[in-house]
Amino acid sequence: MRSLQVTIKDIAKQLGISASTVSRALKDHPDISEKTKIKVKALAKELNYKPNAIALSLQSSKSNIIGIIVPQIVHHFFSTVISGIEEYAGKKGYNVLICQSNESIDKEITNTQTLISSRVDGIIVSRTKNTEDFKHFRNIQNSFIPLVFFDRTCHGLKTDKVIIDDYKAAYEATEYLIRTGCKNIVHFSGPENLKISSKRMWGFRDALKKNSIPFKEEYIINADNLEDGQNETEKLIRNNKIPDGIFAVNDMTAAGAINALKKYNIKIPDKVSVIGFTNELISAITDPPMTTVEQNGYIMGCKTAELLIKRIENIDAPFISEIIPTKLIIRDTTKKN
Amino acid sequence: MRSLQVTIKDIAKQLGISASTVSRALKDHPDISEKTKIKVKALAKELNYKPNAIALSLQSSKSNIIGIIVPQIVHHFFSTVISGIEEYAGKKGYNVLICQSNESIDKEITNTQTLISSRVDGIIVSRTKNTEDFKHFRNIQNSFIPLVFFDRTCHGLKTDKVIIDDYKAAYEATEYLIRTGCKNIVHFSGPENLKISSKRMWGFRDALKKNSIPFKEEYIINADNLEDGQNETEKLIRNNKIPDGIFAVNDMTAAGAINALKKYNIKIPDKVSVIGFTNELISAITDPPMTTVEQNGYIMGCKTAELLIKRIENIDAPFISEIIPTKLIIRDTTKKN
Repeated sequence: MRSLQVTIKDIAKQLGISASTVSRALKDHPDISEKTKIKVKALAKELNYKPNAIALSLQSSKSNIIGIIVPQIVHHFFSTVISGIEEYAGKKGYNVLICQSNESIDKEITNTQTLISSRVDGIIVSRTKNTEDFKHFRNIQNSFIPLVFFDRTCHGLKTDKVIIDDYKAAYEATEYLIRTGCKNIVHFSGPENLKISSKRMWGFRDALKKNSIPFKEEYIINADNLEDGQNETEKLIRNNKIPDGIFAVNDMTAAGAINALKKYNIKIPDKVSVIGFTNELISAITDPPMTTVEQNGYIMGCKTAELLIKRIENIDAPFISEIIPTKLIIRDTTKKN
Repeated sequence: MRSLQVTIKDIAKQLGISASTVSRALKDHPDISEKTKIKVKALAKELNYKPNAIALSLQSSKSNIIGIIVPQIVHHFFSTVISGIEEYAGKKGYNVLICQSNESIDKEITNTQTLISSRVDGIIVSRTKNTEDFKHFRNIQNSFIPLVFFDRTCHGLKTDKVIIDDYKAAYEATEYLIRTGCKNIVHFSGPENLKISSKRMWGFRDALKKNSIPFKEEYIINADNLEDGQNETEKLIRNNKIPDGIFAVNDMTAAGAINALKKYNIKIPDKVSVIGFTNELISAITDPPMTTVEQNGYIMGCKTAELLIKRIENIDAPFISEIIPTKLIIRDTTKKN
């Protein structure tokens, strides 16, 4: 007694066509001719073909799980976006699984595999600073799993995405420094291959240019964490190159700058103004409380979940790029306008 | 032509026994007699029985995924523990999926279901403040999925756990306040049904007692976040009941107290000393930087992952409770000893 289950291969063999043609014909794929579809379906019926249970469950069952890959949950911005995603997804009956890439491409790749094997219905990604090869994201798309990026997107991949206008936000922050009297402004910037960093840097540069403040390359200093912010500011102080304004790529870096200025008893904002970016929890706790750009991670998360769930419901809809408005939160590290 | 795949039910029917007996006999379960096993296996062989592929993969395959459920990743302590878990698990070839309960029991229950359906090899939990019914955790154990708790454990459940000595840490912090001259100390405490909170509260109370400082119920105030810490401190100031020491159940609450004292120009630590708990990022950023209890989340995470992986390798090993040492980090919100 042996199993006589008919497979796609049996049908393909009898008709002298490929198994993938049979598979697509059975699924009414538009690439397959009506004539072939009729032939395939007739033989499948005759042989009492039943799709393999595993294949079927892989294809059709919904897990109602959304996967998220972010660089680091320790950053308040990412955990706030995740809150927004969970809030929206929860209302729509989806649960959420979170992975951290820790800014490692290898880990990001493993994360995508883990989520695919957990049979998530869709995946939300904010990529690492270093991701340059997007094969693992193409893999997600090739598995017909909807994919949406937020904040850190992948240029060249066709997906929905939710971003802020980093250029405009940085331009406005820099202009605020200029408007309140700063003439000698330094930008602490993130890695240039990360689009959000380079956009913030160009917003800064163009604001100087527009306001006829000559630009020097030394105004841009690579620093994107608390330690770097503190060290680079101390270096400027020791080298007697103290700026009158600092615009940092994120709040932690700005907090480092504030620490350094306080260490050397340099008055904020009288001598040096500081603006951060993101409006993390710490920006209200620094002394003085920090002026910063609010990125509104919660709204960003809600919108990202909304786009993903729409994509899950209709994989063929046109792709959308949603821009979430930012806002300059004026606290006490800048002079009054 | 119809599928003639033999099932467990066919075997059970022919032998006049239950399907579950057949299933267990095929798996050499100790509850089934040798006689029955021989009969079942012989018929299975005769009928060319092949276990269903899905069932097989559900039973035997390892996913090499560890699931984590924490209250909120936005808390630096939890994201630090997760870093430790990921570091250790990564070295051992495990990937990690993270869920947030957001202090909601319903969400915690859904999280356990999501992780079980993602076929994780083991689950690590720090429970919500409100979890009183542990059925969903028993479900995990009944599914033979190893379960380890850290920090917020479940009294009465037999599991491995990784904790700190909250009583001792709170006792030592309070004694430090007393030793540096505080006589009128208030404790901002968390919910009493959460073991870590009540242990910290008792550590505080017993330190007063041991040092012959009379205890009053009004010394214990329910406050466990930034806002509450600020509001309750302002209330004490307005009611002219300013203490000379505050020991808070966590750093955010202590940060709220610091904000309130500064708002009323009350000198820290000259007039009022403040001690937090956890040593989160913000404790070094408050002004003055905060004295606090270091909980060492990273080590806690490594140890938790180690216990879980040991349990995955041997489900029957004796249960272990591991206590991670704490340390009082003395910064500038307390007087010198």
